[in-house]
Amino acid sequence: MKPVCFVMGAGAGIGGTVGKKFAAEGYHSVLCRRSDQDGLDKLVGDIKADGGDASGYLLNAVEENTIEDRVAAVESEIGPIEVVLFNLGAQIGDRPLADTTYKQFELGWRMANFALFRIAKSVCPRMEERGHGTFLVTSATAAVRGNAGQHSHAAAMGGRRMLCQTLNAEFSPKGVHIAHILVDGAVDAPDTLGKLLGEESYQKLRETRGMEHDGLLLPSKMAETYYHLSQQHRSAWTHELDLRAFSDRPWWNH
Amino acid sequence: MKPVCFVMGAGAGIGGTVGKKFAAEGYHSVLCRRSDQDGLDKLVGDIKADGGDASGYLLNAVEENTIEDRVAAVESEIGPIEVVLFNLGAQIGDRPLADTTYKQFELGWRMANFALFRIAKSVCPRMEERGHGTFLVTSATAAVRGNAGQHSHAAAMGGRRMLCQTLNAEFSPKGVHIAHILVDGAVDAPDTLGKLLGEESYQKLRETRGMEHDGLLLPSKMAETYYHLSQQHRSAWTHELDLRAFSDRPWWNH
Amino acid sequence: MKPVCFVMGAGAGIGGTVGKKFAAEGYHSVLCRRSDQDGLDKLVGDIKADGGDASGYLLNAVEENTIEDRVAAVESEIGPIEVVLFNLGAQIGDRPLADTTYKQFELGWRMANFALFRIAKSVCPRMEERGHGTFLVTSATAAVRGNAGQHSHAAAMGGRRMLCQTLNAEFSPKGVHIAHILVDGAVDAPDTLGKLLGEESYQKLRETRGMEHDGLLLPSKMAETYYHLSQQHRSAWTHELDLRAFSDRPWWNH
Amino acid sequence: MKPVCFVMGAGAGIGGTVGKKFAAEGYHSVLCRRSDQDGLDKLVGDIKADGGDASGYLLNAVEENTIEDRVAAVESEIGPIEVVLFNLGAQIGDRPLADTTYKQFELGWRMANFALFRIAKSVCPRMEERGHGTFLVTSATAAVRGNAGQHSHAAAMGGRRMLCQTLNAEFSPKGVHIAHILVDGAVDAPDTLGKLLGEESYQKLRETRGMEHDGLLLPSKMAETYYHLSQQHRSAWTHELDLRAFSDRPWWNH
Repeated sequence: MKPVCFVMGAGAGIGGTVGKKFAAEGYHSVLCRRSDQDGLDKLVGDIKADGGDASGYLLNAVEENTIEDRVAAVESEIGPIEVVLFNLGAQIGDRPLADTTYKQFELGWRMANFALFRIAKSVCPRMEERGHGTFLVTSATAAVRGNAGQHSHAAAMGGRRMLCQTLNAEFSPKGVHIAHILVDGAVDAPDTLGKLLGEESYQKLRETRGMEHDGLLLPSKMAETYYHLSQQHRSAWTHELDLRAFSDRPWWNH
Repeated sequence: MKPVCFVMGAGAGIGGTVGKKFAAEGYHSVLCRRSDQDGLDKLVGDIKADGGDASGYLLNAVEENTIEDRVAAVESEIGPIEVVLFNLGAQIGDRPLADTTYKQFELGWRMANFALFRIAKSVCPRMEERGHGTFLVTSATAAVRGNAGQHSHAAAMGGRRMLCQTLNAEFSPKGVHIAHILVDGAVDAPDTLGKLLGEESYQKLRETRGMEHDGLLLPSKMAETYYHLSQQHRSAWTHELDLRAFSDRPWWNH
Repeated sequence: MKPVCFVMGAGAGIGGTVGKKFAAEGYHSVLCRRSDQDGLDKLVGDIKADGGDASGYLLNAVEENTIEDRVAAVESEIGPIEVVLFNLGAQIGDRPLADTTYKQFELGWRMANFALFRIAKSVCPRMEERGHGTFLVTSATAAVRGNAGQHSHAAAMGGRRMLCQTLNAEFSPKGVHIAHILVDGAVDAPDTLGKLLGEESYQKLRETRGMEHDGLLLPSKMAETYYHLSQQHRSAWTHELDLRAFSDRPWWNH
Repeated sequence: MKPVCFVMGAGAGIGGTVGKKFAAEGYHSVLCRRSDQDGLDKLVGDIKADGGDASGYLLNAVEENTIEDRVAAVESEIGPIEVVLFNLGAQIGDRPLADTTYKQFELGWRMANFALFRIAKSVCPRMEERGHGTFLVTSATAAVRGNAGQHSHAAAMGGRRMLCQTLNAEFSPKGVHIAHILVDGAVDAPDTLGKLLGEESYQKLRETRGMEHDGLLLPSKMAETYYHLSQQHRSAWTHELDLRAFSDRPWWNH
C-alpha cells in the first residue's frame, strides 16, 4: 500500500504540482480543493496518465467536519497519511482597514489558521501512533511581517507560523516533522496569482519575469524542496526555510 | 475635557494599574473588563479617591457589538479616545493538542486577535481624523515563539503581533502610534497569574521572586513604560519593545 | 557626587544630545569623540552654561588602551560610571563588495563591535560590584538585516546585537541593564547623516522631511526614550526597542 | 573538468562529510583545514578509494593571503569553484566576560566572520562572471541569539549571518546562491564536539543521544540537505534554514 500525501489546497500552482511530485515518487496523492471539479479531474487524470496514483475531492475547508471526515475516509479507504501538504492561502489583496470586513478577517483565520489546527487535530494523533509523518505547511512573508493592507492575511499567517511552532514542539519528539515553508515571492500559479492580477497582467508578468527568466517561483522547482523536506532523516530536520527566486529581493531588504 | 484612556482588560494587574497611571497623569480612564463588578468598582473608586477620573464597564469582548457600542458611547458621552490599552489575554495554560478544543482555539482568537481588529476598526478612523492617538497592545512571548502546549495562545498572539504591524503600516503615517509591548515574564497580577497558579503557589512565587526581589514584573513599574510610550514624540516612536524582570531569562536564551 | 554618564561617540546628533539630557537630569556627562575639539568644547560649554556638569575628551576608539584608560581615569577622578551610552557607528555608505576593502571591514568591526567589547570589559565588573548600571547601545537596522552594499556595517552591527544579548545574559541578573536601541531611520544629525549626504542634500532633506515635519528622528526627542530606559525599575527592563519617525516605513515593510 | 567544491573547515564532522558527498556526486572536493595532516590525508584517501576526486590542504584561515592564494591556485590548477562550503567555527565554550580575552574575541571574528569576507572577496567575482555558484555557510544558533558565556562566538556568528544577507543582496541577482544554514543542536563530530566535551563525555553523549537514537545531528544526513541546497533551481532558492535532530528542542523553545 502506498503512503498517502494529503494535499489541502490542490490548485494548479504549488498544491497540485507538489501533489504530482509525490505521486511520481510513489505516494498516493489525495488532492483536495474548494472548487473547480474540471481542474481537479484534470490533475488526477494527469497523475494517472503518468502512472501515478491520485484521488481528488472538492472540500470546503471552512465548513464543519469536512476536513475531519475526509481524513478519516482516506485513512480507512486509501491508506495512512504519511505527508500532509497544507497549502491553503488567505490572500485577498491589499485593502485598507476600512475595506476589510469582519467577515473577511474571520474567513482568513478560518482558512489559514483554524483549518490547520483542525487537520492537525485529525492527523497528528495518527502520525504520533505510527511514530512518523510530515506536515509541509506553505506559508507566506505575511507570517513574519505585516505590510499595509494585509490585516486579514498577516494576522492569519502570523498565527499559522506560531501554530507550526507549537505543533513542532509537541510532535517533533514523537517523530512528526513539521516544516514551515516561507514562500517569499510571487509564484507562477494561475489559480492564485493569476486570479489576483487578472489574465492580462499575469501573462505580462510571466513574460517579463517568469518562465524563461526564472523571476517567478516555479512550482515544479519548489516541489523539489518540498519533497526533500519530507525525506530528511530525523537526525537533521528543517523546521523553517524560505524560498524565493534568485532575482527577487528578500522581504527584509529594501 | 480630559483625553480618554480606554482600557480593554482592566483587571488588578497591568490593565487596572496602567489605567490608574493614566488617570494620575490627567486622563479619564475607561476601564472595561469581563467580570467582577466589585473589583471594577474598587478600581474606579481608588482612582477617584486619588482625585482622578474613571468609569468602569463590564464588557464581554467576544460578544457582538459590545466593543463597538462602548467605543461609540465613550466618544459621545465622555470624550475622544486618545489612548487604547488593549490588554486582553488568552492564556489558558499549557495543554497538549488532544486537550485543546476547537472552542478554546476559537475563543483564543476571538479574544486576543479579533477583538483587537474590532476595536481598531472602531477607533482608528476617529484617531486618523483627529491626526493623533495611541494603541498600547500588551503582548506575550507567545507572539514570537510557540512553546509546547500553547497552541491556542501562540496562534492568537502571533496573529496579534502581525495585526499590530499592519495597523502600524497603515496608521502610523496618519499620526496613530501603535506599540506592541512584549511582556516576557511572569507578571505580579492576582487576576491572571494568581488564577493560573492557584492562591498558594502564587503567594509562594511572590515571596520568593516577586515584591522585594523584583523577580516578577511589577505592574506599577511597567506602567511607567506604557505611559512613556504614549508620550513619545512622533519623530521617535517605538513600535515594539520587550519587558522582563532583571533576574529573568529572556525568551531567546536557554 | 553625581553619577556619571559616559558617552562614546558624542557628536552633534544622538551622542551629544543624550549627553545633554543626562546632564540636565543630574548626571556628570563624560563626552568622548574621535575628533573636532571645537565641537566638543562647545558641547561641554553648552551643558555648563545650562548649569550641568560635563567633561570632554578626544578619544580614538580603535587605538589600544584609549577606552580602558579613559574609563579608569573617569572612575578615579570624576566618579562611578552609572550609564554608558555606546554610540559609535560604522556606516560608510553603500558600496559593493569589490569596493569594500579588508581595512574598511576590519575598521567597522573595531569601532562598532570590538570597542563595545572593550568598554564592557572595563565597566561591567565595576557595575557588577556596585550592583547597578546601564548600557545604552545605539544600534541600527543593519543589526537585523543586511542590505546590499552594507557588508562592513551590517557584519559589525549584527555582531554588536548578539554581543548585547550575551552581555545581558550575564550581567542583567547582576543588576546591569543592557538596552539595544534599534534606530530604524534617518537621524537629524549633522555629524553623521550630514557628512554622509553632503551639506546641500542634507539641508534639503531636513527641509522636506525633518524639523517641522518630524520625518527625521530628532535627537532631542530620542533622548527622552534613552533617558527613560536608564530609569526603568529593574522589575521591568527593556532589552530591545526600535525608534523611527511616525512617517517612516519600518525596516520590515516594503 | 569537474566542478570544484571548496571546503573551509574540513574536519571529521560536517566539513569532511559534506566534502565526501559532493565528491560522490561528481565534484572535485578541495578540503582545507588548519591542522592534522593525517586526518586530512585519510579524508582525501577515502574519497579517492570511493572513486571520487579530492585534494587536501592545510590552511590557517587567520593568516594573511592563505585563503586568497589557495582560491587562486585551485581556480588555475583544478578548476572553477562552483560551491564554497564555509564551515569554520569559533566556538570556544561558555566563558564569562572576565575570562574572555581581547585575543579570543578578535580570533573569533577573524575565523568566523573576516575569513568569510575574505573568501567572498576572492570567489564571488569569479562566480559573478560565470553567472552561477553557491556559498553554503554553516552557522550556529549563536547567530540569532546570544547566550551567557558566548561573547566571542555570538558576536562573530551574528556578524556572519548579516554578512550572508549582504552577500545575498548583492550576488543573488547575479546568479550566486548564498545559503545560511543554522545548525541548531549538537553535531556528532569528533573534531569539534568531541574536543569540546572530552573523549569520555562525548562517547557517553553519543551512546545516549546519538547514533542509534538520532539525537545528535548526523553529518551524513545533514550532507543531504547541504547538497540539495546546492542543486536548487534559481527560481526557488533558500537563503536560510535550520537543522536539528527531531528529539531536540529548537532554540526558541524553553
